[in-house]
Amino acid sequence: MLIGGAVLERKIYLKKMELGQALRMYLNRLKETGFFEPKTEKVKVSEAIDRVLARAVFALRSVPHYSSAAVDGIAVRSSETVQASKHAPKRLDKGHFVIVNTGQPMPKDFDAVIMIEDVHFLEDGSVEIFEPVPAFHNVRTIGEDAVEYDMLFCRYHRLAPQDLALLLAAGVFEVEVLKNLECAVVPTGDEIVDPSSELKEGFIPETNSVLVRTFLEKLGATVRVLDPVGDDPAKLVSTLQRLLPAHDLVLFIGGSSAGQKDFVYRTLEKFGEIVAHGLSIRPGKPTVLAIVEKKPVIGLPGFPASCFTVLERVVKPVVEAWYHQSEPDEDLLQAECATRVYSSVGDDEFVRVVLAKVKDRYVCVPLKRGAATMSSLTKMDGVLVAPRGQEVIDEGERIRVQLTSSRQRIDETVLFVGSNDPLIDRLSDLLIERGVRLSVVNVGSLGGVKAIAKSHAHFAGVHLFDSESETYNVPFLRRMLGRFVVVKFARRLQGLVVQKGNPKSIRTLQDLVRKDVRFVNRQKASGTRILLDYYLSKLGIEPHQINGYENEELTHISVALRVKRNLADAGLAVAYVAQLMDLDFVPLCWEEYDLLILPEFLNDERFQTIFDVMTSSDFRNVVFQCSGYDISDLGKIIREDEPK
Amino acid sequence: MLIGGAVLERKIYLKKMELGQALRMYLNRLKETGFFEPKTEKVKVSEAIDRVLARAVFALRSVPHYSSAAVDGIAVRSSETVQASKHAPKRLDKGHFVIVNTGQPMPKDFDAVIMIEDVHFLEDGSVEIFEPVPAFHNVRTIGEDAVEYDMLFCRYHRLAPQDLALLLAAGVFEVEVLKNLECAVVPTGDEIVDPSSELKEGFIPETNSVLVRTFLEKLGATVRVLDPVGDDPAKLVSTLQRLLPAHDLVLFIGGSSAGQKDFVYRTLEKFGEIVAHGLSIRPGKPTVLAIVEKKPVIGLPGFPASCFTVLERVVKPVVEAWYHQSEPDEDLLQAECATRVYSSVGDDEFVRVVLAKVKDRYVCVPLKRGAATMSSLTKMDGVLVAPRGQEVIDEGERIRVQLTSSRQRIDETVLFVGSNDPLIDRLSDLLIERGVRLSVVNVGSLGGVKAIAKSHAHFAGVHLFDSESETYNVPFLRRMLGRFVVVKFARRLQGLVVQKGNPKSIRTLQDLVRKDVRFVNRQKASGTRILLDYYLSKLGIEPHQINGYENEELTHISVALRVKRNLADAGLAVAYVAQLMDLDFVPLCWEEYDLLILPEFLNDERFQTIFDVMTSSDFRNVVFQCSGYDISDLGKIIREDEPK
Repeated sequence: MLIGGAVLERKIYLKKMELGQALRMYLNRLKETGFFEPKTEKVKVSEAIDRVLARAVFALRSVPHYSSAAVDGIAVRSSETVQASKHAPKRLDKGHFVIVNTGQPMPKDFDAVIMIEDVHFLEDGSVEIFEPVPAFHNVRTIGEDAVEYDMLFCRYHRLAPQDLALLLAAGVFEVEVLKNLECAVVPTGDEIVDPSSELKEGFIPETNSVLVRTFLEKLGATVRVLDPVGDDPAKLVSTLQRLLPAHDLVLFIGGSSAGQKDFVYRTLEKFGEIVAHGLSIRPGKPTVLAIVEKKPVIGLPGFPASCFTVLERVVKPVVEAWYHQSEPDEDLLQAECATRVYSSVGDDEFVRVVLAKVKDRYVCVPLKRGAATMSSLTKMDGVLVAPRGQEVIDEGERIRVQLTSSRQRIDETVLFVGSNDPLIDRLSDLLIERGVRLSVVNVGSLGGVKAIAKSHAHFAGVHLFDSESETYNVPFLRRMLGRFVVVKFARRLQGLVVQKGNPKSIRTLQDLVRKDVRFVNRQKASGTRILLDYYLSKLGIEPHQINGYENEELTHISVALRVKRNLADAGLAVAYVAQLMDLDFVPLCWEEYDLLILPEFLNDERFQTIFDVMTSSDFRNVVFQCSGYDISDLGKIIREDEPK
Repeated sequence: MLIGGAVLERKIYLKKMELGQALRMYLNRLKETGFFEPKTEKVKVSEAIDRVLARAVFALRSVPHYSSAAVDGIAVRSSETVQASKHAPKRLDKGHFVIVNTGQPMPKDFDAVIMIEDVHFLEDGSVEIFEPVPAFHNVRTIGEDAVEYDMLFCRYHRLAPQDLALLLAAGVFEVEVLKNLECAVVPTGDEIVDPSSELKEGFIPETNSVLVRTFLEKLGATVRVLDPVGDDPAKLVSTLQRLLPAHDLVLFIGGSSAGQKDFVYRTLEKFGEIVAHGLSIRPGKPTVLAIVEKKPVIGLPGFPASCFTVLERVVKPVVEAWYHQSEPDEDLLQAECATRVYSSVGDDEFVRVVLAKVKDRYVCVPLKRGAATMSSLTKMDGVLVAPRGQEVIDEGERIRVQLTSSRQRIDETVLFVGSNDPLIDRLSDLLIERGVRLSVVNVGSLGGVKAIAKSHAHFAGVHLFDSESETYNVPFLRRMLGRFVVVKFARRLQGLVVQKGNPKSIRTLQDLVRKDVRFVNRQKASGTRILLDYYLSKLGIEPHQINGYENEELTHISVALRVKRNLADAGLAVAYVAQLMDLDFVPLCWEEYDLLILPEFLNDERFQTIFDVMTSSDFRNVVFQCSGYDISDLGKIIREDEPK
């Protein structure tokens, strides 16, 4: 990893292109090169599931291939049943009926079947019937399903399970189908290493290829993943030359940004036609769409969210065009945006969101937007497209979201926001057994209160310290909301997380001013930071006296990790994380972490389920294994109405 | 195949059970036996696509594992950028900035990155910047995505491509997942034979197992299909005993009706618990839901539509419960029913339908309803559930349809009804290339006129002979509709299809009255039948004079097949089918087969596409290869408005 390097060699995106235009041009150019001309092969019908027919298929025999009884009963001549009725049963002697079972060929000269249940068998071997039947009644006639020579399917039909059954029945045992798209995936970059190796700073685990491979395989492609290729132009060239003859699509991952090492672009520029270098979308900008030897070669960005977005928006349409399938329906939902979203002026922005139904309308909460975030991809229920030109989506604005989860899954989702606690994760895991899916979005205690006030979530986790009363939550909420419902959750022990064995003998907050103690703080406005500042001011300690007061982390776990890695000697966090990481802990105080409930959610049966699981012995057992929690008040409901 | 047999041994369904109740009972009983207790195995993350997690998974390292530059640029101390502005650039000397590329570790004591594009490099090695940046700007902080110890996924989460990438990034290389459901599928019945064998009457090709296998595989199960087992109770017992230890679910196909040979039911009754024998659904009635040795054993009906319906309604929920997944969303559509549907009083009836959007509302056309029809399964876009108790769904009634095709596919569908002609199939195959999907439903010429009058289709194929004017279509439509649009399609040659070489020397309709000539007729009200009757009456021939006048077939192809198989000597049909089957043909007259268009559809761009393809040289080439067509008027548009 060179720091610095030749700045002047840099290349800026010369023609950042609008997504729709780039895709249209790319598909058109590929069409012109003949790339989408069907390449076909013959496969056995029994192995043709999900394959796409290359041409129309015709029946080679009739289905069924003979006329048969469709039920168990007696075959009759319909003309002989005309006078039958309940009051005057018609008697048929031997020779005028034949007992038949389902599937048996119709006896010659008989044209209808009466169900066995509707026949009265007489002792002399004759029968009585009680209703006339029309010709072909309960008869499965030859060719009823398909007649020999019938066209069964058009070209480009994707074969479903029932299609295979019909083909076999119609005597078709082999079909000509489109060949599967053969893809090669090449991760690039000197910094890319095997994810199972020891990771050093500056090296990035190669995790994109599994995403790209399984994404393509689900679309029907055959995928070969190569070992990463370093930033070596000669190697990229030889790799490409080796891959092109045997593959239909080559994907390079990484190395397509306009950075100093944009080797993929430079290689493709030399050997083929660049249709687009840079797309005006976020994430996904550093994309190269090229054609080399009449085949698509795509440079995918290396950041995971960018890579995924380009797979969805560019690669998928190319693969679908190969299979002559139209893009599947994009399921759209109108949702109310829970937070203000600033979008870029010049780019279409794809913002990943979680969705839930709150009070009869859908709410979407934007997730982390960075191109590098992977967790937003795993949590999302949909994608909000903030189109170019629209600078801001307001909080409360109704917008259209493209779904990636099913509507049912979204309808079942209970949205939890606010401050998080590890117990909420454990609760959500138990809730799965009861069919309730919790979507957890961390926005801090105050964010949680705001979301409940606006009906943008079902419930929130809060620990809001009221310094006046020196108590938690209720006095604070009384001032902020007036009317609210709180379910008591857990008291949790806050204190100083210190090294195992407490080598620096840190006993009180006073010890933080010692020169040999490195502190790690939480971010401003977090409940834990407010608590710290309150205690420091009581003790008359100024922030500048503490070494490391300005080092901020966003979660309890991050604070403890910093201590664990010996980057700090002490940090304020809940006891549980010290236990988790096998660190020592100096108790400071108990704080109250409670659940603020949307009043309407109280009557939702899912609330009852959550309440049941929360107060179950299963959950209590989970809590008993975690240090520093007191759940003696768990489940107590406090409801305050507006003072009159 | 025994005809007759021991009638007294029959067993009637004693407890036909409502579907919902049967399924609930079955799932509950299986739960009580512990069947749904998770069975787990460990798999590599790289091979875990679509697998279901058995338990919550926690991050084993932070993602990313170090803080890095998120863009190419210079690392700075945010506090030193505060005064920078466009008008008064801030100058940073060496030591106060470090050039960094995307992904490089943040240099110690630097906390923000300014993009290279926004930096002005001076000759003395210092830089100028034009804006202040906040701390962590363009920095990808350690643990931004996931922090070590974070819960990444709850139990029973099904792993998507992006999930695998996050797991690898978080240092998780192996996960514990639910074992795949191991299924065994056993076709039963003496009459079941290999579909590739020569089919004799009374024998049925075994085509259900490919449907069942691929259906289950798409749900994630592992499936083993056995060779068919005959109707031999001892063999069924030994097969079941052999399969149970190694499989989680055993499916018998066929043999579960209440017929004389209901061996599957009798076997299961002896060895296990029968939860339901017979469901009050159509199709799908003869189903057995049993539990043997704490495992589900299901007897599926042998008729394809029944088998499919029970797979969808019973087997799928069992498989989903195994994987602890809730049933996916059922996409529903409100549609107007194009024909009256009589439903059964006691059963829920699942009617397969095609769907299309006509004049801004959806229209559904019921397909053949028999349990034995396979083609309805391959053509359907959705399933109309006619619930027990509702005796009739009226034509024009708005009803809810459960979709099996995507909404986009349905929206793209052009609905063609009326009389069919083989050229329409060939046209539909060519249209696929142009992105138009034709759904073809045969209801005869008059049915087509009716559908267009009610806006229940986009266009219809008609050949309606007006005996008064001795011409086709226009005079007829003038009387029936008043206002209409016709696009001329093809004149086609009708005549007598006779044996190759015409051994019986059939030259005119007069020859049909000969005693040695066996005739095959078309059904009443078909255009061809009307034509025949017209000519016979002109010639003074009475129907009873013709040997076989009462033998009716439904299509041109069926008539020709009957001749081909030497079951008849002559039949009236279009010349093309004689060519298709290499038979001889005695021309009788030309008839006009035209397209009646819904007036609003004229302005639909898909009509333009159809028109373009229909008049293209590609289509003309197809027609030139078919005998007996004259398309010199093809594409002429006749529009008549109501007389004023």
